[in-house]
Amino acid sequence: MKGAKLVNAASGDRHPGAERWVYGVNAVLRRLLVDPGSIWELRLLPNASGRRVDILRAAERASVVARDADERTLRLLTRTDAHQGVAARTGPFRYREFPLGGDDAFSAPLVLDQIQDPHNLGALVRTAAAVRMGAVVIPKHGAVGLTPSAEKVAAGAVNDISVCRVTNICRTLDVLRDRGYWAIALVAREGQNLFEMKIPERPALVLGGETGLRPLVRRSCDLVASIPQSHVVESLNVSVAGAIAMYELLRRGLLDRGQGGW
Amino acid sequence: MKGAKLVNAASGDRHPGAERWVYGVNAVLRRLLVDPGSIWELRLLPNASGRRVDILRAAERASVVARDADERTLRLLTRTDAHQGVAARTGPFRYREFPLGGDDAFSAPLVLDQIQDPHNLGALVRTAAAVRMGAVVIPKHGAVGLTPSAEKVAAGAVNDISVCRVTNICRTLDVLRDRGYWAIALVAREGQNLFEMKIPERPALVLGGETGLRPLVRRSCDLVASIPQSHVVESLNVSVAGAIAMYELLRRGLLDRGQGGW
Repeated sequence: MKGAKLVNAASGDRHPGAERWVYGVNAVLRRLLVDPGSIWELRLLPNASGRRVDILRAAERASVVARDADERTLRLLTRTDAHQGVAARTGPFRYREFPLGGDDAFSAPLVLDQIQDPHNLGALVRTAAAVRMGAVVIPKHGAVGLTPSAEKVAAGAVNDISVCRVTNICRTLDVLRDRGYWAIALVAREGQNLFEMKIPERPALVLGGETGLRPLVRRSCDLVASIPQSHVVESLNVSVAGAIAMYELLRRGLLDRGQGGW
Repeated sequence: MKGAKLVNAASGDRHPGAERWVYGVNAVLRRLLVDPGSIWELRLLPNASGRRVDILRAAERASVVARDADERTLRLLTRTDAHQGVAARTGPFRYREFPLGGDDAFSAPLVLDQIQDPHNLGALVRTAAAVRMGAVVIPKHGAVGLTPSAEKVAAGAVNDISVCRVTNICRTLDVLRDRGYWAIALVAREGQNLFEMKIPERPALVLGGETGLRPLVRRSCDLVASIPQSHVVESLNVSVAGAIAMYELLRRGLLDRGQGGW
């Protein structure tokens, strides 16, 4: 791949020459099951046990060749000790276009303004997939993207929900509003109590990053809500606050469970 | 401190000779505000800005001397790059005795069976403090303790909730049962739907680690509950599942908000 020309395709993110090593047992296993063609090379610690055996089986079924690698090699490839004994070479993360077409457009989207920490992004994507939010929308600039570290924390969920990157979050909220969504800004200690407020039938949940929502984005929202909490704690972690809010939408029957339920 | 004799005091965890470096802006700031005597030495990056200025002010008020330290020194002291420019030397984490006396005994405890990841433990403690659970109980063996890494993720919340370490979680559940608590095991995809079930007035929430609850602990519980989720996602992250369950207790008015509310 060295020296391959980077081509900016329409999506702005498809560099045929770029490659990444994704890692983590769940992240790699789910990719093998859902999108095996995206894996160009698979490396594992020898003498696989436990869930790495599932990976070997899934690789065999998908005709992906799995090769042994020692700890040191895996650390070099993934640049972390958190690889859990498995690494898969793949292309750049495939963001979806926004707005989505089809059925996806009909379930509530999760809009993330400026998440900086890949762990928080990965955790939010994992929960969003678990409740079947319609999509996760993140900004192209000023925020972390779906790095291998985020993908590992998402534990495979990136294969089960659309993640879109947009240039302008405020413009995204306008588009959602045109489609009948109500943007609900989740903040700390202000606005209405999320558990007591009336939530519109087509909500879009808008979360700020670790330092809160930018004022401009907040003003673009239709409603402001917060999660009650004791004064002793500065704030909830953003991935925890997001999860509680997503589950509140689920509990109220505001999320589309799709045909056939869960 | 080198060569100091380690003394096993009654708590099993008070080694007068042991020391640790805790780090992270919120973790250190909250310690300075609530328990400044626990900080033996404070080191910061020079030219403090933002919230590190708050730390300097709190240190001055508490008569704790703050000394400059460069990036390399902070990395050596804290053994991480996640120090956020501040490190405080302190003693071993001060676990509380179980069972607690006083008012603490009257709000629902969070019992964690075998959490391995300090990030998950820290996140659970942070949320537990935010909803004012009565205490967090962790086992002495087979689980991560409140390491500096966990304390950093807890963002200061360890100063605002009692964390107890016990030898035997099943015995802990017996003690809680004797005091009128109902132990609710939170698991994946089994038992009753947490959002629809009847929850007793004095719940104790029991969570397993990253690989779930041990069968013996689960059998020691009175009720088994799970959080609904799409089949596409293997499981929720344990700190997310715990947060959703704690907030369900809060939403149902089952947590004691203390005098004067929040």
